[in-house]
Amino acid sequence: MASPDFVQHPYLDTDGDKLREECGIFGVIGARDAAAVTALGLHALQHRGQEAAGITSFDGTEFYSRRGIGHVAENFSTGEAMAELPGEMAAGHVRYSTTGGAGLRNVQPLYADLASGGFAIAHNGNISNAMHLRNDLVRKGAIFQSTSDTEVIIHLVATSRYPTMLDRFVDALRLVEGAYSLIVMTNDGMIACRDPLGIRPLVMGKIEETVVFASETVALDIVGAEFVREIEPGELVEVDFDGQIRSTRPFGKPASRPCIFEHVYFSRPDSISGGRSVYSVRKAIGEQLAIESPAEADLVIPVPDSGVPAAIGYAQQSGVPFELGIIRSHYVGRTFIQPSDGQRSSSVARKHNANRALVQGKRIILIDDSIVRGTTSLKIVQMMRDAGASEVHMRIASPPTMHSCFYGVDTPERSKLLAAQMDVEAMRAFIQADSLAFVSIDGLYRAVGEEERKAKCPQYCDACFSGDYPTRLTDLNERENPQLSLLGEKAA
Amino acid sequence: MASPDFVQHPYLDTDGDKLREECGIFGVIGARDAAAVTALGLHALQHRGQEAAGITSFDGTEFYSRRGIGHVAENFSTGEAMAELPGEMAAGHVRYSTTGGAGLRNVQPLYADLASGGFAIAHNGNISNAMHLRNDLVRKGAIFQSTSDTEVIIHLVATSRYPTMLDRFVDALRLVEGAYSLIVMTNDGMIACRDPLGIRPLVMGKIEETVVFASETVALDIVGAEFVREIEPGELVEVDFDGQIRSTRPFGKPASRPCIFEHVYFSRPDSISGGRSVYSVRKAIGEQLAIESPAEADLVIPVPDSGVPAAIGYAQQSGVPFELGIIRSHYVGRTFIQPSDGQRSSSVARKHNANRALVQGKRIILIDDSIVRGTTSLKIVQMMRDAGASEVHMRIASPPTMHSCFYGVDTPERSKLLAAQMDVEAMRAFIQADSLAFVSIDGLYRAVGEEERKAKCPQYCDACFSGDYPTRLTDLNERENPQLSLLGEKAA
Amino acid sequence: MASPDFVQHPYLDTDGDKLREECGIFGVIGARDAAAVTALGLHALQHRGQEAAGITSFDGTEFYSRRGIGHVAENFSTGEAMAELPGEMAAGHVRYSTTGGAGLRNVQPLYADLASGGFAIAHNGNISNAMHLRNDLVRKGAIFQSTSDTEVIIHLVATSRYPTMLDRFVDALRLVEGAYSLIVMTNDGMIACRDPLGIRPLVMGKIEETVVFASETVALDIVGAEFVREIEPGELVEVDFDGQIRSTRPFGKPASRPCIFEHVYFSRPDSISGGRSVYSVRKAIGEQLAIESPAEADLVIPVPDSGVPAAIGYAQQSGVPFELGIIRSHYVGRTFIQPSDGQRSSSVARKHNANRALVQGKRIILIDDSIVRGTTSLKIVQMMRDAGASEVHMRIASPPTMHSCFYGVDTPERSKLLAAQMDVEAMRAFIQADSLAFVSIDGLYRAVGEEERKAKCPQYCDACFSGDYPTRLTDLNERENPQLSLLGEKAA
Amino acid sequence: MASPDFVQHPYLDTDGDKLREECGIFGVIGARDAAAVTALGLHALQHRGQEAAGITSFDGTEFYSRRGIGHVAENFSTGEAMAELPGEMAAGHVRYSTTGGAGLRNVQPLYADLASGGFAIAHNGNISNAMHLRNDLVRKGAIFQSTSDTEVIIHLVATSRYPTMLDRFVDALRLVEGAYSLIVMTNDGMIACRDPLGIRPLVMGKIEETVVFASETVALDIVGAEFVREIEPGELVEVDFDGQIRSTRPFGKPASRPCIFEHVYFSRPDSISGGRSVYSVRKAIGEQLAIESPAEADLVIPVPDSGVPAAIGYAQQSGVPFELGIIRSHYVGRTFIQPSDGQRSSSVARKHNANRALVQGKRIILIDDSIVRGTTSLKIVQMMRDAGASEVHMRIASPPTMHSCFYGVDTPERSKLLAAQMDVEAMRAFIQADSLAFVSIDGLYRAVGEEERKAKCPQYCDACFSGDYPTRLTDLNERENPQLSLLGEKAA
Repeated sequence: MASPDFVQHPYLDTDGDKLREECGIFGVIGARDAAAVTALGLHALQHRGQEAAGITSFDGTEFYSRRGIGHVAENFSTGEAMAELPGEMAAGHVRYSTTGGAGLRNVQPLYADLASGGFAIAHNGNISNAMHLRNDLVRKGAIFQSTSDTEVIIHLVATSRYPTMLDRFVDALRLVEGAYSLIVMTNDGMIACRDPLGIRPLVMGKIEETVVFASETVALDIVGAEFVREIEPGELVEVDFDGQIRSTRPFGKPASRPCIFEHVYFSRPDSISGGRSVYSVRKAIGEQLAIESPAEADLVIPVPDSGVPAAIGYAQQSGVPFELGIIRSHYVGRTFIQPSDGQRSSSVARKHNANRALVQGKRIILIDDSIVRGTTSLKIVQMMRDAGASEVHMRIASPPTMHSCFYGVDTPERSKLLAAQMDVEAMRAFIQADSLAFVSIDGLYRAVGEEERKAKCPQYCDACFSGDYPTRLTDLNERENPQLSLLGEKAA
Repeated sequence: MASPDFVQHPYLDTDGDKLREECGIFGVIGARDAAAVTALGLHALQHRGQEAAGITSFDGTEFYSRRGIGHVAENFSTGEAMAELPGEMAAGHVRYSTTGGAGLRNVQPLYADLASGGFAIAHNGNISNAMHLRNDLVRKGAIFQSTSDTEVIIHLVATSRYPTMLDRFVDALRLVEGAYSLIVMTNDGMIACRDPLGIRPLVMGKIEETVVFASETVALDIVGAEFVREIEPGELVEVDFDGQIRSTRPFGKPASRPCIFEHVYFSRPDSISGGRSVYSVRKAIGEQLAIESPAEADLVIPVPDSGVPAAIGYAQQSGVPFELGIIRSHYVGRTFIQPSDGQRSSSVARKHNANRALVQGKRIILIDDSIVRGTTSLKIVQMMRDAGASEVHMRIASPPTMHSCFYGVDTPERSKLLAAQMDVEAMRAFIQADSLAFVSIDGLYRAVGEEERKAKCPQYCDACFSGDYPTRLTDLNERENPQLSLLGEKAA
Repeated sequence: MASPDFVQHPYLDTDGDKLREECGIFGVIGARDAAAVTALGLHALQHRGQEAAGITSFDGTEFYSRRGIGHVAENFSTGEAMAELPGEMAAGHVRYSTTGGAGLRNVQPLYADLASGGFAIAHNGNISNAMHLRNDLVRKGAIFQSTSDTEVIIHLVATSRYPTMLDRFVDALRLVEGAYSLIVMTNDGMIACRDPLGIRPLVMGKIEETVVFASETVALDIVGAEFVREIEPGELVEVDFDGQIRSTRPFGKPASRPCIFEHVYFSRPDSISGGRSVYSVRKAIGEQLAIESPAEADLVIPVPDSGVPAAIGYAQQSGVPFELGIIRSHYVGRTFIQPSDGQRSSSVARKHNANRALVQGKRIILIDDSIVRGTTSLKIVQMMRDAGASEVHMRIASPPTMHSCFYGVDTPERSKLLAAQMDVEAMRAFIQADSLAFVSIDGLYRAVGEEERKAKCPQYCDACFSGDYPTRLTDLNERENPQLSLLGEKAA
Repeated sequence: MASPDFVQHPYLDTDGDKLREECGIFGVIGARDAAAVTALGLHALQHRGQEAAGITSFDGTEFYSRRGIGHVAENFSTGEAMAELPGEMAAGHVRYSTTGGAGLRNVQPLYADLASGGFAIAHNGNISNAMHLRNDLVRKGAIFQSTSDTEVIIHLVATSRYPTMLDRFVDALRLVEGAYSLIVMTNDGMIACRDPLGIRPLVMGKIEETVVFASETVALDIVGAEFVREIEPGELVEVDFDGQIRSTRPFGKPASRPCIFEHVYFSRPDSISGGRSVYSVRKAIGEQLAIESPAEADLVIPVPDSGVPAAIGYAQQSGVPFELGIIRSHYVGRTFIQPSDGQRSSSVARKHNANRALVQGKRIILIDDSIVRGTTSLKIVQMMRDAGASEVHMRIASPPTMHSCFYGVDTPERSKLLAAQMDVEAMRAFIQADSLAFVSIDGLYRAVGEEERKAKCPQYCDACFSGDYPTRLTDLNERENPQLSLLGEKAA
């Protein structure tokens, strides 16, 4: 949610060669221990943000907040922690965030005492005109306490002239562009909403009469909630303390563009997204790959764990046996000090180890979900060769990642994306594989159940592959055209 | 290594329904940054003990120690930590241990200043006459600083009348019964040895002229060492600072009895144990299971992660497709406070989630490595049924676990072992599966390459399945026959 | 500075029977290591606030802040701490404050990024219409991040329509009533100012060309600065980065009313306040007491340490010898768990112990600076009797404390002030002394060099003794007249 | 208690120019909350050791220990801490000690499980043949867990051949030379004893039938105990759980030699030592000084706080008025980072500030308790001159400190003792005073009530002034005569 400028990733393993979802959100209203339910839900969303977590609750009178650096289990598993968060409504957030005391300012939910009452907000996504709006608000006397783009929404609500909290909130959202799935708490209840294109996910569930919102269905499973439906793009759902649910669509009904990368990598395989099992979509991508890019080989080997479903699909389609040729350690963590001599141990080696006895003398097909910088792929190919593989054929379960994301995903700048710098043959040479292939973009669309990508009006946001961004990118353009920006400021 | 009386497992997830290896050890001599090499090696052995870690180094003059509660990466990844551990020889230990300040006393390596010089020891195993020896030593004036059975060895060395450190050490081992793989450091170099039956594993590797010892070969891989060979049962290997290696067999050469459960569960699948790939042994167990206990079904589903290799073997042998029907969370940890109403979330549910879309309406074969208390199996079967599985056939990649281990594995007391309480049909009913089968003991021996188990002289220690303990169990017998014990004490 | 409503004192020893100054401030501009100078200066002001400390620095481009719960030495004595605070301008603050993470929000200096640049503020005093102003600002969309009254000033500056930072600041102060000594940092330099009545102190010093501001002269001594002069009541002093000093008086020149209790208790005896040595004023109070209220006795004994100077004055004036009849421990701290039987040990007993051998059988005159709740006096008198004193005559170096302070001093509510509940004879009976006397208010004024208190236009703020408050008390009146307050809100 | 070789003082302020008592001990038997009583008692002894504290309790069955770095209040003031220490018998210890985890090994009471039962010991003093005994024990197989000299006693008890715990303990003490006041706990009760010369203090008190032992009487005061008597030199007092008290004198009755420096500096002024009020002895030293070394001056000024009683005595004897010319900060602590320019602030300046207004233009007599390295005296004299004193006459309330202590006091090596390097006139020049005088050794003896020092058989241990050590110094001599030592070792 914070724009790439603000965020540092202190725990970021420099070999951590993946795009990363930046947030997961969860909310519940009408549960006796709303904070405990929220903690469990966030735990199931931990893969969406591992550096910080926060929960805010409301007991009918007061709002209570607790935030912490680290995992949900480290911060929200004790009775003491829960006792600080009383009430039947709560919302929470997991995120990547700066570490340390000051960094806690950016951990969500953000909260403010407004003249119209308390206002807490948890945000998954990124507002692409946040700097522009912020500069404007500061000029009018607003004082920001975080560097988060989300705080812009709170100040827009605080300074809106509309009478009701709901009108103020809609008034604020009208000024905002970009991607946002939001869970908001006010003195009147909970509001869940999704931006008009529905870029980031948000689902609704129920535990009997208790209403639950979450980024993914796995968070419904863990709290024992039934999946009701997705919040629709552009929809705003209000739930009050009597359990009344009201849905509105304040922005009309544009065509939706959900993020296709949720299927490729972000979502957990046991989630249901857009009506489809993520696991089965990934298997289908593997099948597409096997059809599009077969290889003569002895073994299909996944890069664990994200490559496993596509590898199973590839193996079933091709008839080449699926085997665990790389063993993943469960105990990855900090970077170790390297011994000054002898062979180095990269963080790849601390995470993955070749199953030498299996790989020795074999032709292998390696399946991974994506290539970002290419550094990990290079090391994995090398590890397979060191273990005695006679041929290494790399197959990637997504098209080449060529463009940055401005909608809440942590991507390196374009110059560091391997696919933005070279063609597939050059990439193959770079990672030193015997062959390299990516699933085609139409193959990817087929795996999610479409016949093909509709070029004029794509069914998904696939900007990271296509460069086709579905919204304006105001902050980016003003940075790149500073004079325009200054003119804009004069005009304001 | 500590006898069951002393040890508590504060982090023990009460649903953690597995036998647990209690230690991993690692040593290196002749490396410029011996402690950094050791930290990496221990990290690769983290699965053998996750509650505490320690490293002791020697710089030619002084011994240095550092210990910590938690993972290796939490305690030994910084430059500051390494700066406390200078020298070209180091040894380390990971273990399950009591938490807190006092608990650190039991974290190994243990160290003592003896009249003949410094003596540091890291131990994997358990001494089955430790209490007996300890009582005797205390009566003679020895003061123990830990509750660890390993400290007995140090006091025996300290009070031995032999002139050299080596003679004193062998003199001490002669009094000790049970299981021990040991790495010892003295002012003269490193000693690695394994008990006469070789119950616990120990391997030797080399990085050029640098000698490395470790519990498993994966720790050689991570430090870039070549696997040389296993330390043989009853062998004692000395390495001095000139790199001279000397092997002796002070206890003759009895038939060996290595722990067969290392193949079933403890060792990492990418380790080589007893000359065999652990991964391929586990696949072979799965194949045996498919031959011995087939089932009509649509899917073969592993209980992740330990059931995966056997499930691949079962699927390949049976032709039933291998699928991920259970998704494992990477973020397990503490127990959460449970919400007071709504459906509960067990720790099983926090670790595992059903892949509902896949399982729905299917007949499934579930593959797990073992059943200890049965509580997890019950929950997993239930989870599969809740997700819509029409039939659940459980297949277990080991024989029924019916007896406690006294050789360094954390087992519940016998009364809590499901297989000690009921027969297979009753177990099936308890876990509510449609069918249940274990691999036969001969099937297990076939999977490790034997034709069958030789009843008179079994090739492995399989006491947890057979009750056939290969050593005397002095402490146990004295506890169970207190009068004998008192008589013994009077006689002393 | 925070109004009494907001503040809790977690470390407050319940026997801590003293009025407490709530803050000390320090600033320096033009020093190579401004933060290190500030840390030393704050250390010398530690007696003015022991629960939290903060420093903000400016390096010509950016502002840097660091805050901590606890003493200055615990938070600002390391090189790492100083490295976080680069630049040649810095200001700091010590205070009483809530503990814990959230409490850090209230630790000063407060900082905000305003449209006109950075703005940092450290405040000693209390704004008596803070709630009124805050409600008004929130209605207009301001979002507060602390519960501190000082934040009101920042929002008033942020929303002022004046063009320059200085004009905005003066515009803000015009709306503020109460007591404030302020040190402000902007991108242009440092501003020090004192409210029109000069209730709280603020002095200026120089280290060569470097300008220093501080609450007391002891902070100049410790950094090696020469005392230049006091900031005058209502004066505003600007210092820019060229060392240019400009003084203005934006509020005209009303008669000043500095706090007389600074002489009685708050300031350190080695400070110079209002042109007088605090030590010599306290001795003079003791002399007045000896003249006004002599007693037949063998020893003059101070209640350490604050009673010592007055006791020396009393002894010299009366000829009764000065002796240490009470020994103060240097290691006071938290409250201990009390043993369940035997004699109890109050926190008074942990801080003070009778010098029994000295006191035994003697008639003593006890000198203390003030009586607040009377609980400590009662225990001290009892302690002297237990040690064998034959008579105990209590003499107090201030008039009876009968009214709460609303200008930045932590006073109990009136109902807990002993002197607000009873006359002197009843107080004597309550504390069980043989006689009790307070210095007269005119005696106190004589000790500070006046002939007498001018009733129509008192030279000092002595509201805690006289109830004669020199400013309006808007928040208090609105609380006590809620209907008026509501009317006021309607009108706004 | 630890010999000077082992100990480092991490918190040692390099300007901390004092000899330092190294320990305080406290024990209680028969109190319902023995640990809580002990915590209070240790708090009153905090001045005897500020770096670490420990308490061991016994509940009739088990011994419980808790240790911590830092003050008693930081480690033993909470209910949780007390809950870890159940039982009606407890003993505790405050000490100077190395910091950090490993350092905790040396924090007392030390505890061991011996064949004859539990044995806990708290020691004030130093064993001057500890290294010699330790080498011998290690040769016989003993394994030491600390570097503390006290542990020698435990091993001697453990290896004694006598049948009862008491006999073993006496047997052990017979081998020990040096200074020791000990509080020991066994399964049978508490033993308090003092070395044959009674070098370090130990007193007994009672709270009704509950027996209390402590280093000083102030610890009796704080727990509400009545002072019964001192433990006599060479006396051993046993108390059992029925409250039976038994006194023995296992070493005969040599002439006693208590440490005279307890009167000069170590003990608190409100303690009674050797039947005399420490405060009145210090005043008497001041009076002796005034008689022996008068000076023409305007003010008598103590170096706070230890110089205050002697200054009061000097002032009363001489008629020169007593005034606070130096103000001491209550908030001393760590060393601060120094600003790189401007005047430096030494740690002396952070602790002490001149009362300039008082001192300006005056001839002053400064009273301090002792001169160790002389660095503080130099700075204090300089501070007085900077504040405008026209003459500075330094008077010292002890004879010149010329020799190291080997009996449990932290002294710099001789080469750093100013008085070991130069005569009084040279010392005067070094500290830049106008005159300098020390009390004579006979003056000191007169102040403690003797007519003079009996040269043949001094009534006190005054080795730090006279070099006349009352015991053999085996370890020191073996270090200084290594060949003798080797011979000794061969002979052993």
